[in-house]
Amino acid sequence: MEEKTISNSRRCYKQWLWFMVLFMSFSVIYVDAVWPMPQMISSSMARYTLNPREFIFQYSSGSSAQPGCSLLDSAFERYYPLIFTDYRKHKCLEISLESFSQLVYQDDFGEYFVNETEIEDFPRFQFRGILLDTSRHYLPLHAILKTLDAMSYNKFNVFHWHIVDDPSFPYQSSTFPDLSSKGAFHPLTHVYTQIDVKRVIAHARLRGIRVLAEFDSPGHTQSWGKGQPGLLTPCYKGTVPSGTFGPVNPANSSSYQFMTRLFKEVTSVFPDSYVHLGGDEVDFTCWKSNPDVRGFMLKMGFGTDYTKLESYYMENMVNITKGLNKTAIVWQDVFDYHEKIPVDTVLHIWKGSPGQIQQELSSITLAGYRVILAAPWYINHIDYGQDWEKYYTIQPLNFTGTEQQKTLVIGGEVCMWGEYVDATNLSPRLWPRASAAGERLWSDEKMTSSVIDAFPRLVDFRCRLLRYRVIVIMPNYFGYTPNVESLFTAVTKEK
Amino acid sequence: MEEKTISNSRRCYKQWLWFMVLFMSFSVIYVDAVWPMPQMISSSMARYTLNPREFIFQYSSGSSAQPGCSLLDSAFERYYPLIFTDYRKHKCLEISLESFSQLVYQDDFGEYFVNETEIEDFPRFQFRGILLDTSRHYLPLHAILKTLDAMSYNKFNVFHWHIVDDPSFPYQSSTFPDLSSKGAFHPLTHVYTQIDVKRVIAHARLRGIRVLAEFDSPGHTQSWGKGQPGLLTPCYKGTVPSGTFGPVNPANSSSYQFMTRLFKEVTSVFPDSYVHLGGDEVDFTCWKSNPDVRGFMLKMGFGTDYTKLESYYMENMVNITKGLNKTAIVWQDVFDYHEKIPVDTVLHIWKGSPGQIQQELSSITLAGYRVILAAPWYINHIDYGQDWEKYYTIQPLNFTGTEQQKTLVIGGEVCMWGEYVDATNLSPRLWPRASAAGERLWSDEKMTSSVIDAFPRLVDFRCRLLRYRVIVIMPNYFGYTPNVESLFTAVTKEK
Repeated sequence: MEEKTISNSRRCYKQWLWFMVLFMSFSVIYVDAVWPMPQMISSSMARYTLNPREFIFQYSSGSSAQPGCSLLDSAFERYYPLIFTDYRKHKCLEISLESFSQLVYQDDFGEYFVNETEIEDFPRFQFRGILLDTSRHYLPLHAILKTLDAMSYNKFNVFHWHIVDDPSFPYQSSTFPDLSSKGAFHPLTHVYTQIDVKRVIAHARLRGIRVLAEFDSPGHTQSWGKGQPGLLTPCYKGTVPSGTFGPVNPANSSSYQFMTRLFKEVTSVFPDSYVHLGGDEVDFTCWKSNPDVRGFMLKMGFGTDYTKLESYYMENMVNITKGLNKTAIVWQDVFDYHEKIPVDTVLHIWKGSPGQIQQELSSITLAGYRVILAAPWYINHIDYGQDWEKYYTIQPLNFTGTEQQKTLVIGGEVCMWGEYVDATNLSPRLWPRASAAGERLWSDEKMTSSVIDAFPRLVDFRCRLLRYRVIVIMPNYFGYTPNVESLFTAVTKEK
Repeated sequence: MEEKTISNSRRCYKQWLWFMVLFMSFSVIYVDAVWPMPQMISSSMARYTLNPREFIFQYSSGSSAQPGCSLLDSAFERYYPLIFTDYRKHKCLEISLESFSQLVYQDDFGEYFVNETEIEDFPRFQFRGILLDTSRHYLPLHAILKTLDAMSYNKFNVFHWHIVDDPSFPYQSSTFPDLSSKGAFHPLTHVYTQIDVKRVIAHARLRGIRVLAEFDSPGHTQSWGKGQPGLLTPCYKGTVPSGTFGPVNPANSSSYQFMTRLFKEVTSVFPDSYVHLGGDEVDFTCWKSNPDVRGFMLKMGFGTDYTKLESYYMENMVNITKGLNKTAIVWQDVFDYHEKIPVDTVLHIWKGSPGQIQQELSSITLAGYRVILAAPWYINHIDYGQDWEKYYTIQPLNFTGTEQQKTLVIGGEVCMWGEYVDATNLSPRLWPRASAAGERLWSDEKMTSSVIDAFPRLVDFRCRLLRYRVIVIMPNYFGYTPNVESLFTAVTKEK
């Protein structure tokens, strides 16, 4: 999966992100100052002064990346001012820029230092995702771009864009413009135009982030029905239509024709080799009430088992995707209903108790499917106190299975569902809570098993996110006031 | 209590805020559009156009407030641009400006309207407070000022400033500068100077808000000890001091001398006739360990009952306050320990189950004390979902007691303790959740008993808070983007 992405971008990128050997002939007061924890880091007290006026990033002669690599050049541009806050001029050196930026510090006189540090680094999991839900509340474009910035600082590499759902359809389709003009909260202000989408993809790419689009069906599609009459199943009350609608109508061939055209567009707009088809939480009540659907069930020999109808629908969807040369990711429901799907389909675990999750991991990987773990990281579920510990101590590979099965767990995802989240609270809810999952997905589990050791590092890292303006303090009447006090510093007995 | 404040401000203020009869010869599409709900509101569909260029606020000839009333003049200045977002010019009319501002709306062509509306209004409770805790996390001055703005839109009238506590002492005392220079998180950046405090008080006053300062003792004083050696009780391990410190040392007369000087300053800096003395959560372990304190217990005939020692301390504190012509507010602990305190002392309920709270209300009012209810509104305790309903459905007078007892419940308070709150998340945590309590404390309970009726009004009001920039969306790369989508609009079944 990772390989496919890489082929989408440029070779230098792989060299830079996936395997970094930093051997810097300079070096740290703050040992272990990098978040997420590198696979290997050792530092000495010997420190070297950095002169911003003379500091340059440069390509190593032995590197496969050479001058002109646009991803690296652009990263150099971004990181120079993050490292040297007072200076503008900058050039190159092949390193993990995010890790490096976290090693540079200033003394009281404003001089920049880095301690002699050796870092060897690569991610533990290839899929490290953040889901944003832009249907339940619309998120302005800049909120998405800012989240991408924050993701890169946390070494997340997949933006899972849950772009449409029941409440609204903000994706402005060129093939079916009515979907957003009738299904968005507002047809002009609460939509993502084709240009917006391109901007998100470009912004993400430069930060080493893939954009995984989800167009969830057959459930979660109420907003689709507004702009595409005939797509959803009319629900019946007795022998007459009730006026409400259920999931996509799986009995009509027109539904699949529509989906083929829509996904042809979607898979062309979103260049990633994967596409998310959803497939979760299909309520059978409406299907059961509809005489046409019942007739179709009979004709297909499904009896009264509506999971077979759902399977039939999802199999069609996966085949459509396949025909477009994309690989499907689907929610776990699709596996739970024993649907016949290609073995390269990726299953996405989103529900269950810890025990049920372990069981699901075992079953899915035993069946040979790859899996992404989201259930433990439903970060929209807020709670009082330091719940980052809960996200930090998840052990994604702690389930019964062979070594081969474990390799099928390709990663995890932090989900920020949008019921109660919009641009007013997204950022303080996401960071640094998601950073806990970020380290779990990037770093070696044994090196990062202690919540107590992680705490001061996370406190430092949160201050960095404040300095990077990922988390923003309440603006004053004129502009901003920088403020790097910690979320966690002062905990006393609660009143 | 209210009367004393009023005498601090100007007569016009009372006329304006405490009893408003709005009889406007104009009028509403949005009936019931005012939050919190006025005591009486009736509106017709007849609507009148407002021309911003000709609109003036003016003093009614029969009003006790006449031109030159600085509070009203200043309010006119603030509200004109809130009402007419496109215009600058403005003058006067004696009304509840906040309610009026909520009645004005624009059509699609930008014209301003108000429907014919009759409002009679006054607050149900005289004390409607918000507590901010600036010790556990420092809050920059502008975060406090912004909160005061938001309070005024919600008709809160007391800012309870829990200014110091164990973690830090940000109040910069002119008498004891070491308290902040040694006890603040940072002696220069994380303090409130005398000028800062004056600015808060002035900003509050113009918005009809009193500033109630709390200097909590004898517990919650760890930060005090840094700048005032000898104030806290040295804890002992066996026969030797352990190096740690407990509550203020109640056995030393120097403690009371210090407190007298400090409160002389505090009561002069904060002009309100009330001062909050704290008195909660005193841990006796350290007192018990200290031989001097034990000796003092013997000498005073307290036996081994340390509640008597605490009572002795608090009685001294209340007397000091009394000598400074201020009335004390204390946490309920002071009542629970049967301390001998003047009957004009106000008790502040902060703990217990609903049943315990009702019992406490009965007991305190039966003893003739006035009471403020904070326990149901610990709004820092976040939870997933629409918890505003919990704050909305509190019935402050639902306890066993005579009508006379009920009148002793002077109001309630929303507490935002600072363990996990700073300027990055204060605002979205406070609003509109605190607005639910705001309506409970202002409006008639029978008129506002339905969560279902309140919901769309609260949704509207939240949009207003967004327009007023009380809640701010994530800034884009260049500045702000206005955004008034609702927190609550779209709730679907949760993934």
